[in-house]
Amino acid sequence: MTEPAYVAVDWGTSSFRLWLVDRSGRVLAERRSDEGMLAAAKAGFSGVLQAHLTAVSTPDHLPVLVCGMAGAKTGWVEAGYVDTPAPLAAILKQAARVPGAARDIRILPGIAQRDRAAPDVMRGEETQLLGALGLETEGETLVCMPGTHSKWVRVKDGTVAHFSTFMTGELFSVVSRETILSLAVAGADEAEDTASFKTAVKAAFAAPAFAANLLFTARSRQLLFGGTPAAARETLSGTLIGTELAAGLSGSVPKSAIALIASGRLATLYRQAFDALSVNVTPIDADEAVRRGLSMAAAAIWTK
Amino acid sequence: MTEPAYVAVDWGTSSFRLWLVDRSGRVLAERRSDEGMLAAAKAGFSGVLQAHLTAVSTPDHLPVLVCGMAGAKTGWVEAGYVDTPAPLAAILKQAARVPGAARDIRILPGIAQRDRAAPDVMRGEETQLLGALGLETEGETLVCMPGTHSKWVRVKDGTVAHFSTFMTGELFSVVSRETILSLAVAGADEAEDTASFKTAVKAAFAAPAFAANLLFTARSRQLLFGGTPAAARETLSGTLIGTELAAGLSGSVPKSAIALIASGRLATLYRQAFDALSVNVTPIDADEAVRRGLSMAAAAIWTK
Repeated sequence: MTEPAYVAVDWGTSSFRLWLVDRSGRVLAERRSDEGMLAAAKAGFSGVLQAHLTAVSTPDHLPVLVCGMAGAKTGWVEAGYVDTPAPLAAILKQAARVPGAARDIRILPGIAQRDRAAPDVMRGEETQLLGALGLETEGETLVCMPGTHSKWVRVKDGTVAHFSTFMTGELFSVVSRETILSLAVAGADEAEDTASFKTAVKAAFAAPAFAANLLFTARSRQLLFGGTPAAARETLSGTLIGTELAAGLSGSVPKSAIALIASGRLATLYRQAFDALSVNVTPIDADEAVRRGLSMAAAAIWTK
Repeated sequence: MTEPAYVAVDWGTSSFRLWLVDRSGRVLAERRSDEGMLAAAKAGFSGVLQAHLTAVSTPDHLPVLVCGMAGAKTGWVEAGYVDTPAPLAAILKQAARVPGAARDIRILPGIAQRDRAAPDVMRGEETQLLGALGLETEGETLVCMPGTHSKWVRVKDGTVAHFSTFMTGELFSVVSRETILSLAVAGADEAEDTASFKTAVKAAFAAPAFAANLLFTARSRQLLFGGTPAAARETLSGTLIGTELAAGLSGSVPKSAIALIASGRLATLYRQAFDALSVNVTPIDADEAVRRGLSMAAAAIWTK
């Protein structure tokens, strides 16, 4: 086994992931938990991190690089923002050091779009972008990053030019749990209904203004024609994702240059959605991207 | 004081309103409570109604006419639907009688749109339409009926030709209470921010696909530029209403023939929204419309 060189941490709002990495970027150990920013703000960031470091027998001197919501104002140490147009290389240079820690712990900054008509912020996705695209990209890429708060990002020649956040994942969660539509999806099992999903994607893409109507049809259709809870759930999911794609694809970027950075179930769903619209995308694994981004940053910070 | 002739009840999902009315349609007494369909399904519809009848000393023989969700499958007695294209006159002829009641109690049917691509249902709004437009309307009217589940209805020559439900009110409720945006609106007082509202209406109307993004700007704007909780709340409200209007006004009906059936705060908000888009509407009070619709139906049913 090779020597560990640093620790990489992706510390989101509701999830915590840690990797013990060697000099070549190889993962020696991994930890995952739900001690995200919200939980750690109560339990204490320092203690949560130390417990995971101890669990993988991290040497005392090893430095730790963190990205994500741990750097928010309501997080551990505020790591600030790089403003758009934001060169991805600038991320590496503005890591905030956690004061008073025994080891070298740094948190990468987010990106802010200080545009009064389209204000926006990201934290964590900038590190995925770094890992997915690298520092030296040429030309323009449109990037779709699905999630609780999906991001659509335009990267030009290694610089984040513009981005937009869509609350797609969070809307799906509250609409399916907290509205009258919860009756329509109640009892939906894991069975997928790809046909209902793709139909909803296409309908919402064609008429995104009708999203709040198309959602309601999940219930009306069940009342008038029957149908499974899974079909209703896929109608909600497809409507919200189809609406997001209508906005994300409304700009000028050629379809051949769209990158989809996602993992697991979301990667599958969004691939099906792009498929339904006959739009080609290049899939990139989000977990790998964030790890690679943290490796690149760690190498830049600690390799003199 | 004149003799009471019948009792009119608007029994919605979450509200109950009762009027004791004389032969000429004049209101002799009124009751309002939050014993809507959901509450009454637990407490018992018959007992809830009787308590309100007793409170206004209703004579034993007086008939009662009900509209709204009390006629749903999950309500008191299922009152069925008139299918589109639905002549408003057909509503009067299909009231369902409550079996086993000592007095004559009838519930008006709803309207169903059995279109697999655009299934939809209404219960209660058909009675408002009856009261607002009457039986003998000529030509085409586009009707906007704001609410928890807003309805946009095309009425042609006294017949409901097509309608669409938008979950605008319910979405506002869950988005402002149950998502990350609850942080942005926390502490918003009653102070209105009409400028923020109208700005959001125009932005969403111009780019409805971006609704889930425009909602999120309520938080990003506060993070990057500050701003009041009231401004954030009006941004949410204006975004959702502006998106609804983009869909509702996307059809072919001339702007001069739009009726807005609403009461109270919703009437004010939607008038401001139409104003922001320079669209003329004819405002009609929803409370008066439902009372007038119930009166017309009662007269048709019980005046031989």
